Amino acid sequence: MKIMSFKADGKKTYGVVDEKVSKVWDIPGLAIEARQDIPSSILAGIESGESFYDQIKSLLEWASQNKKDEFLLPLDSVTFRAPISRPKKNIMCVGKNYRDHVIEMGSEADIPEDILIFTKAPTAVIGHEETVDLHADVTDELDYEGELAIVIGKQGKSIPMDRALDYVFGYTIINDVTARDLQRKHKQFFLGKSLDTTCPMGPWIVHRSAIANPNELDIQTKVNGEIRQNSNTRHFIFPTEEIISTLSKGMTLEPGDIIATGTPSGVGKGFQPPRLLKSGDEIEITIEGIGKLKNPVQ
Amino acid sequence: MKIMSFKADGKKTYGVVDEKVSKVWDIPGLAIEARQDIPSSILAGIESGESFYDQIKSLLEWASQNKKDEFLLPLDSVTFRAPISRPKKNIMCVGKNYRDHVIEMGSEADIPEDILIFTKAPTAVIGHEETVDLHADVTDELDYEGELAIVIGKQGKSIPMDRALDYVFGYTIINDVTARDLQRKHKQFFLGKSLDTTCPMGPWIVHRSAIANPNELDIQTKVNGEIRQNSNTRHFIFPTEEIISTLSKGMTLEPGDIIATGTPSGVGKGFQPPRLLKSGDEIEITIEGIGKLKNPVQ
Repeated sequence: MKIMSFKADGKKTYGVVDEKVSKVWDIPGLAIEARQDIPSSILAGIESGESFYDQIKSLLEWASQNKKDEFLLPLDSVTFRAPISRPKKNIMCVGKNYRDHVIEMGSEADIPEDILIFTKAPTAVIGHEETVDLHADVTDELDYEGELAIVIGKQGKSIPMDRALDYVFGYTIINDVTARDLQRKHKQFFLGKSLDTTCPMGPWIVHRSAIANPNELDIQTKVNGEIRQNSNTRHFIFPTEEIISTLSKGMTLEPGDIIATGTPSGVGKGFQPPRLLKSGDEIEITIEGIGKLKNPVQ
Repeated sequence: MKIMSFKADGKKTYGVVDEKVSKVWDIPGLAIEARQDIPSSILAGIESGESFYDQIKSLLEWASQNKKDEFLLPLDSVTFRAPISRPKKNIMCVGKNYRDHVIEMGSEADIPEDILIFTKAPTAVIGHEETVDLHADVTDELDYEGELAIVIGKQGKSIPMDRALDYVFGYTIINDVTARDLQRKHKQFFLGKSLDTTCPMGPWIVHRSAIANPNELDIQTKVNGEIRQNSNTRHFIFPTEEIISTLSKGMTLEPGDIIATGTPSGVGKGFQPPRLLKSGDEIEITIEGIGKLKNPVQ
């Protein structure tokens, strides 16, 4: 199940995508029609607990049995929003999680023995097809980073690895857009990672039930149609379960928390000479089983 | 004006402290009595705009003229809560902002030319007199760091230094409790700074009108009554105005954002041998014009 946030007729809402017909079911609309209460956003739904997914599933069955096609909107008639457009804390990001990327940015000696986590401000989040600001006044080195992101589904602390995936609500794509000069200059990554519009997220969240193994997904980034990053999450240094388990050691994870899992080689800064972002570029990240996150740069 | 969050009779509320009589005015209580609408928390008040401070001021005048002393509660009858108990994003923290602290943790060569910012998870926040968990299962090196914290009062981006203080709502104290081993092991500071209960904040927010110059305040940390840190914010490498201005370059600051400004020398790890926290310790941070933030460790 692919759950997306969107705007239609000026109203912010969310729904479930039917890719075969390129349409989206308006879930709160269906709930009103079925005289049911339902959370008003995907984040509120995730926070409400595991019943959220079941409620959506039964609403969809009811809609198809009762031919409620007036709640099925063409995808090209709606405006995408980030599935969680305003996270309740910073997005947590794993740095240096693909061996080949660590080497392109430095050397073999930089391969971490322990997980490295930095954060991105929630003010940086934008949705699919929204524009990434080049921020030419504060950076000369804006770069892309295609990443699989985990959306946490329930509260947990000291989560053992063998139960870590039970704490996942689903998966989405994040473009961890980075100002390389600020990242370098300020040592700790936060400032270079948190400029407004530098956290494209989407196009939707895929429920965990549809992803058999998050550590076995093709991931590809194109800039203006040219393949730049091309890898598979099986090359993670720290797999999904270890990321969740390590983060939860002494720190409570909460429903709606977002964790970006790191980027493979092929970022702009990794090329000789560097191929950084410029106005007019279009970045497109595809992850197997999830979809395609596309954003123009200006 | 000192504004604090607290719990009284099982209810979460907030108020203004009258230190002369060691009491706190129940502000939402007064507002009901005066038949006024008022935001339900300090954070909601700060988000509602500059009128929040004026409304509180006029409520206090009205209360004193009309002898509404039933809304004046003894401080020792209430439970302190962090003034903003659940920030809407991570707490932003300046690292290495006092020359003498940089040297005690490394050497002169580590003195930064550019501001270094990391973040603490909002789940780490606790209030005055709440207990810091020693987290003995995940760290052997828990340490204290007394810091002045800025509370942002209005939204801003690209804020010039000479107008930076206009964007401040007020000031509070933060104990940036740190797991030194995790900080070292994970390179980026986030994990070592974000264990649950490792962000004591309070005891209240002092409105900016009461602090003539945030870069000229005595700051002192005691552990079990013994002075460990003793400095003045005039020793900031990056003063308050520069912190705000630099953070807002390309990143929108929002009302309720919290920025901890760094710690002076005298942290436990700076001693030979190190004097880290242990169960039963009590940490007390005093900042001139603000007050005293006290927390036990267990």
